[in-house]
Amino acid sequence: MDSAPLVLSPGKRPRLSDQLYSQILEQIVSGRLSEGSRLPPEKEICEMFGVSRPVVRDALLRLRSDGLVQSRQGSGTFIQRRPAKRLSDFGGMDQVPEFLRVLELRMPVESEAARLAAERRTAAQLRKIEDAHRQMERDAEAGNIPAEPDAAFHNAIAAATGNDKFLSLSRSIQSSISSFRTVASNVTRTGPRKRIVQVLSEHTMILEAIQSRETEAARIAMMFHLERARRRVTDRSEDS
Amino acid sequence: MDSAPLVLSPGKRPRLSDQLYSQILEQIVSGRLSEGSRLPPEKEICEMFGVSRPVVRDALLRLRSDGLVQSRQGSGTFIQRRPAKRLSDFGGMDQVPEFLRVLELRMPVESEAARLAAERRTAAQLRKIEDAHRQMERDAEAGNIPAEPDAAFHNAIAAATGNDKFLSLSRSIQSSISSFRTVASNVTRTGPRKRIVQVLSEHTMILEAIQSRETEAARIAMMFHLERARRRVTDRSEDS
Amino acid sequence: MDSAPLVLSPGKRPRLSDQLYSQILEQIVSGRLSEGSRLPPEKEICEMFGVSRPVVRDALLRLRSDGLVQSRQGSGTFIQRRPAKRLSDFGGMDQVPEFLRVLELRMPVESEAARLAAERRTAAQLRKIEDAHRQMERDAEAGNIPAEPDAAFHNAIAAATGNDKFLSLSRSIQSSISSFRTVASNVTRTGPRKRIVQVLSEHTMILEAIQSRETEAARIAMMFHLERARRRVTDRSEDS
Amino acid sequence: MDSAPLVLSPGKRPRLSDQLYSQILEQIVSGRLSEGSRLPPEKEICEMFGVSRPVVRDALLRLRSDGLVQSRQGSGTFIQRRPAKRLSDFGGMDQVPEFLRVLELRMPVESEAARLAAERRTAAQLRKIEDAHRQMERDAEAGNIPAEPDAAFHNAIAAATGNDKFLSLSRSIQSSISSFRTVASNVTRTGPRKRIVQVLSEHTMILEAIQSRETEAARIAMMFHLERARRRVTDRSEDS
Repeated sequence: MDSAPLVLSPGKRPRLSDQLYSQILEQIVSGRLSEGSRLPPEKEICEMFGVSRPVVRDALLRLRSDGLVQSRQGSGTFIQRRPAKRLSDFGGMDQVPEFLRVLELRMPVESEAARLAAERRTAAQLRKIEDAHRQMERDAEAGNIPAEPDAAFHNAIAAATGNDKFLSLSRSIQSSISSFRTVASNVTRTGPRKRIVQVLSEHTMILEAIQSRETEAARIAMMFHLERARRRVTDRSEDS
Repeated sequence: MDSAPLVLSPGKRPRLSDQLYSQILEQIVSGRLSEGSRLPPEKEICEMFGVSRPVVRDALLRLRSDGLVQSRQGSGTFIQRRPAKRLSDFGGMDQVPEFLRVLELRMPVESEAARLAAERRTAAQLRKIEDAHRQMERDAEAGNIPAEPDAAFHNAIAAATGNDKFLSLSRSIQSSISSFRTVASNVTRTGPRKRIVQVLSEHTMILEAIQSRETEAARIAMMFHLERARRRVTDRSEDS
Repeated sequence: MDSAPLVLSPGKRPRLSDQLYSQILEQIVSGRLSEGSRLPPEKEICEMFGVSRPVVRDALLRLRSDGLVQSRQGSGTFIQRRPAKRLSDFGGMDQVPEFLRVLELRMPVESEAARLAAERRTAAQLRKIEDAHRQMERDAEAGNIPAEPDAAFHNAIAAATGNDKFLSLSRSIQSSISSFRTVASNVTRTGPRKRIVQVLSEHTMILEAIQSRETEAARIAMMFHLERARRRVTDRSEDS
Repeated sequence: MDSAPLVLSPGKRPRLSDQLYSQILEQIVSGRLSEGSRLPPEKEICEMFGVSRPVVRDALLRLRSDGLVQSRQGSGTFIQRRPAKRLSDFGGMDQVPEFLRVLELRMPVESEAARLAAERRTAAQLRKIEDAHRQMERDAEAGNIPAEPDAAFHNAIAAATGNDKFLSLSRSIQSSISSFRTVASNVTRTGPRKRIVQVLSEHTMILEAIQSRETEAARIAMMFHLERARRRVTDRSEDS
């Protein structure tokens, strides 16, 4: 097998469609584009932002995939959901598209990792998952934002698959989202405690399924957790 | 987001359990351990190979995951399937565990990529998938082993997700298995034409589903293709 | 196509392995078999209950599938989880195996139904799902146990697939579990309000995904809901 | 649990949208609507067939789901695939929508059944699956159309889940599609032998995965088989 390291390199500079995505997102968050209102037609958006049609289509496609807008055949594209304003306050808006793209990869990878971990984990591997979970609980109780134990929890599950490919990919993923985590942490620190309680409860369900070797339950719990993570980024209700 | 590249680094040297896996595999292939026969108990294997219990367990677990052996509660572990002898002739045996581990990661990642590609691919992205497919057909007709268009086919699907995370991971994966592909190619060159015809027919089903935007069909066709790829490595019937 | 109705007939009388399952379950609930303790070997269970080996194996297999016991290779079968005692108080114990078997079928069927509903639902079909949901919330606020709107919610989702096979199967399923629902309702009525709040929150997530046409989110939310339903039956923590 | 049998009742008479579906299908098969050509706008279809807008939408939605037509945003609906003409010759056209709807339910149910069968099947249950498979091979060699062993094969897998809900649903399903099978058999009898060889090869893959207890492989093989069955009904290439 090749000895060169597998590299998952991020784009050097933001793509045009990402910039457009962020700008539209910004306007949704600020309320300039309000829920239920219709986006201008593609052609107008092209002119407004000075970009080509494919760039607009790509940005709209992603807004749709992320559940922020909805297209109705024949009548246009409508704002469907309004993300938390506090995300914008902390300067995280331009990292949102990147974070969501990483999440899209994490969904299949980590739900399979959870399934394999439930099947194969040794007692020692389970202990590491439990340790990270407990550390995260302790940090939360102390009022800290438990970014590192969160990463450690996901990495420990990847390690428990017994397949080093899952582990090294998990590490890459966790390190790639660490700066976004800082933004999210600020949002959480100033926001409701509800959020961290929710994350911990989702982690608990994953952990319990891996403890009891219930493979399908582990897969479902992880999928649910990542789907909720996506929601926490794109859903305004997280403000309250 | 972090500017450091996401690295999916392979282990520097073969793990003990991989070496043990390969040695047992070698003996199954050579026929010294015949189909249906029982493996020695864990303790004996420890002594035979001078390794610890966890190493033996890990190797057996992987042999089981790969469908090569089967454990029956209370009566031991039995040889279940015998891989192609020609794999061993070309010196590929010690790359098998690594190849199978990569495959285990590819299953969730690439089946999701195929689903997303069927949903989102542009006309230009589709053309690249079709080009790779046609090139692979031409190579096969000319009697060549189409390693590069095979990689290009999978990378083009990853690109058609519109999510660069899938593309860079796909490239890493394809480059990491390129040396194994050479071995597999030699096996194929000297072997039956049936094999390459089979691979092309699986690719055709993936391509058709992406062409007609049938998301579930694309997901299923990719999953099936990778499951068959696993089978082609571990199944003796591929000799005939 | 055949004009005869598709019949999904339940067994006339409880199977031996179901009876054994219920009896072991009863003992776990009562605490006679405590968490972490080991079950007697298969042979002893045969003698204790006067049943054959296959019957014992089948009962143990189901207890394992339901996450109530766990087998550790070479060291036996251990009690892993203890269901809510109140389930036993209301005479529901012998309906548990049947309920769990129905749930096992519901998981694949209803998660696919939710996905299709998110893709295809018309405005009128969505309204019916919303109506059932609102009725269930109203019942819950009034302190009633919302059994009928719960069934109506699931049936409305099945109807929104546009495929009458899903609807008629859903109706069969809902009517087949209605008597168990009565037991579960009694458990809930006398129990913590937390439970109904939890069910409603799970339904809300399913509804939101269908509203916004997010197919994967709908599938995941339904899978999660049914997995939790399974947990609510087999998990003692629901007592508190 | 309720003692009344779970009934999965089919609609008494064909729905309007099914009739419309069949008529459009008929025209695609006959070639009056040729591949690549555009369907008239919804409003015109309403007038042509004297049906309401929702009926047209429902029929188009199903044609799209079945991969027969494709909608392109802003430019209309196009014929994408042309089913086997021989299906029409044998009078099976009006049964196609019902058959496809049953298939849509079978996909999630039977792929999960195959997974559970691979996990739980006893030696005796496996033997029944093998017997049905062998009988089907014998019938095919004798030039018969093996309708009964085909049903027996699927029912035996459902039985091997150990969950009687899967078995009774499978029996309902098999009996509901038996009259369509007769049509399909005539198509096959007069058609290429390739078709039955293909079906048998798909069954072999399912059987092997259940034999070797490979749960994911069994699930994938069943999903692939049913997806191909769908294709065999809607794909003209089956004529050749």
